[in-house]
Amino acid sequence: MIDQTVLPETEDYLYFDSYLDVADSITTMKVRGAPAIGVTAALGLALAASKSDASTTEDAITELREAAIVLGATRPTAVNLFWAISRMMSMAEANNEKSLPEFRAILIEEAVRIQEEDVDRNESLSEFGASLIEDGDNVLTHCNAGALACAGCGTAVGVITAAWEQGKKIHVYVDETRPRLQGAKLTAWELKRAGVPMTLITDSMAGHFMQQGKVQKVVVGADRIAANGDVANKIGTYSVAVLAQAHNIPFYVAAPTSTIDLNIVDGSHIPIEERAEDEVTIVGKTRLAPLDIQVANPAFDVTPNRLVAAIVTETGVAHAPYLETLAAAVGDRNSANDIDRS
Amino acid sequence: MIDQTVLPETEDYLYFDSYLDVADSITTMKVRGAPAIGVTAALGLALAASKSDASTTEDAITELREAAIVLGATRPTAVNLFWAISRMMSMAEANNEKSLPEFRAILIEEAVRIQEEDVDRNESLSEFGASLIEDGDNVLTHCNAGALACAGCGTAVGVITAAWEQGKKIHVYVDETRPRLQGAKLTAWELKRAGVPMTLITDSMAGHFMQQGKVQKVVVGADRIAANGDVANKIGTYSVAVLAQAHNIPFYVAAPTSTIDLNIVDGSHIPIEERAEDEVTIVGKTRLAPLDIQVANPAFDVTPNRLVAAIVTETGVAHAPYLETLAAAVGDRNSANDIDRS
Repeated sequence: MIDQTVLPETEDYLYFDSYLDVADSITTMKVRGAPAIGVTAALGLALAASKSDASTTEDAITELREAAIVLGATRPTAVNLFWAISRMMSMAEANNEKSLPEFRAILIEEAVRIQEEDVDRNESLSEFGASLIEDGDNVLTHCNAGALACAGCGTAVGVITAAWEQGKKIHVYVDETRPRLQGAKLTAWELKRAGVPMTLITDSMAGHFMQQGKVQKVVVGADRIAANGDVANKIGTYSVAVLAQAHNIPFYVAAPTSTIDLNIVDGSHIPIEERAEDEVTIVGKTRLAPLDIQVANPAFDVTPNRLVAAIVTETGVAHAPYLETLAAAVGDRNSANDIDRS
Repeated sequence: MIDQTVLPETEDYLYFDSYLDVADSITTMKVRGAPAIGVTAALGLALAASKSDASTTEDAITELREAAIVLGATRPTAVNLFWAISRMMSMAEANNEKSLPEFRAILIEEAVRIQEEDVDRNESLSEFGASLIEDGDNVLTHCNAGALACAGCGTAVGVITAAWEQGKKIHVYVDETRPRLQGAKLTAWELKRAGVPMTLITDSMAGHFMQQGKVQKVVVGADRIAANGDVANKIGTYSVAVLAQAHNIPFYVAAPTSTIDLNIVDGSHIPIEERAEDEVTIVGKTRLAPLDIQVANPAFDVTPNRLVAAIVTETGVAHAPYLETLAAAVGDRNSANDIDRS
């Protein structure tokens, strides 16, 4: 997979022999983006199964449980990680009587299926989302919810590029997204490659351009969506949502149903990862602030459902009341999967 | 004066022999902050007069008019620059019949008076502003409106340190203030030296901490205040003001009356400086974004008066309707000056 920490200067691809290295690549954000880390964890478990020294399926499952704990401890906020791990482990437990070679093949197949489903979901939700974007719109996005963050064409960036490919003349304001600058480094890189007109801005400029009437839509991704539609996403998303509401600009969230966590009633229960201070105080080799000061670095924030105009998933465009529409979206996915597999 | 572009790593002091170098130091932001660049321009004009080769006062005034144009062209938004230049030029024109040595001495005296007045104003407004801060408050500030931005103890940071020195147990959230990071580099440095407890955050975190109930007051400086109380200040200030209102947090502006421009009816007439793209795309030696993309870099934004809970000047705390209270504040200053000089 591509190493996202060295983009946009360098396109470097990483190959893994051990799930421990896969876990490390998630922790250090060589791969990031909620759907992408779900797929990566699934492939990591498939790797653990195929590289396992176990001589029985039972022993392989024991090792896999250990690998699931390690991979699950990498990052706390994106639920896709736990969703993918749980789906892989269910598949493992359901096949505990298979021979070891069969068992390994089943897990590899399931991980690849998770990856392929994400590609399909990206495509479906991008099409649904593109219907919300009008010709001539200026669309603001925060962080990176593009191909790099997913297995396919992306979520928020997928929506944007789908609208562009439909021939809508749009322009994108890209928040640079401090502290890790995923907007400047990744979204700008993706939109440039896709040929979509854009302007890079600092996060602090979003309100100014809204005030000037230059933003018609906001589209962002999500790391976890609670049952009531509260959305955890990259730090700064909440500020963008408040600003959008103050300027009567629709604020859309684009995410696959694997990002919806029906077990969590509202956003207050979503764990927010606190990351290292030097992500804020150091850029490249340059220190930006005095030594020995206190620094906060919450990696995510929670946008309450009242600020969310719609949540776009691969099953369609969900509106409030989200408690009903999100449950229906997850239900639609599950029945679609049942049909696919029947 | 201290070179603000190399803080906080290096404390480097600059000395000038020519007003052209003074002008350059303003353009390149070696000195920045509305009150500070006003004082610097005044001292630059005094330098121009004292270094002039003119043999008559009349010739010296002609040269001074040229210097005023050069210094006035350095940065467009902060009105203190034009206020200080205009005050120096009025003094020059009023003394066009004096001998050259007398003329030079008068201009130096006037520039030093402008500097000393700013020190006094910082102190008065800090005392008035401190009365708005309560024991236990968490105060958020954006950019740097501290001693570095002024001749004295600063405006917004002056208010904060005055409250701290009154024994109020406060804590400050310091927005790093992209793109030039005056919060991380300058405000954090000043507050650390003053021993005021603080936490450095990215601009995108301000809304999150407000949502968590961790911010009780916002205090910022200003680069120009229109007659109706609309406030131009560092880019991102408007976003902070919208967020503060959404969370019922009072948003205060602290600035000397020299920042009030009664000739401008509202904020829409304040010129907003657009600065170089590489301020956004490069930090230190690190490029943050792909090459050849469009980048916006407005250095300021305008916060409408309806979001401003109070404007603190050296004459007191002004509330809406600002059209009346700001005119009164400027009137109070002028009568105070008349008394001082009588």
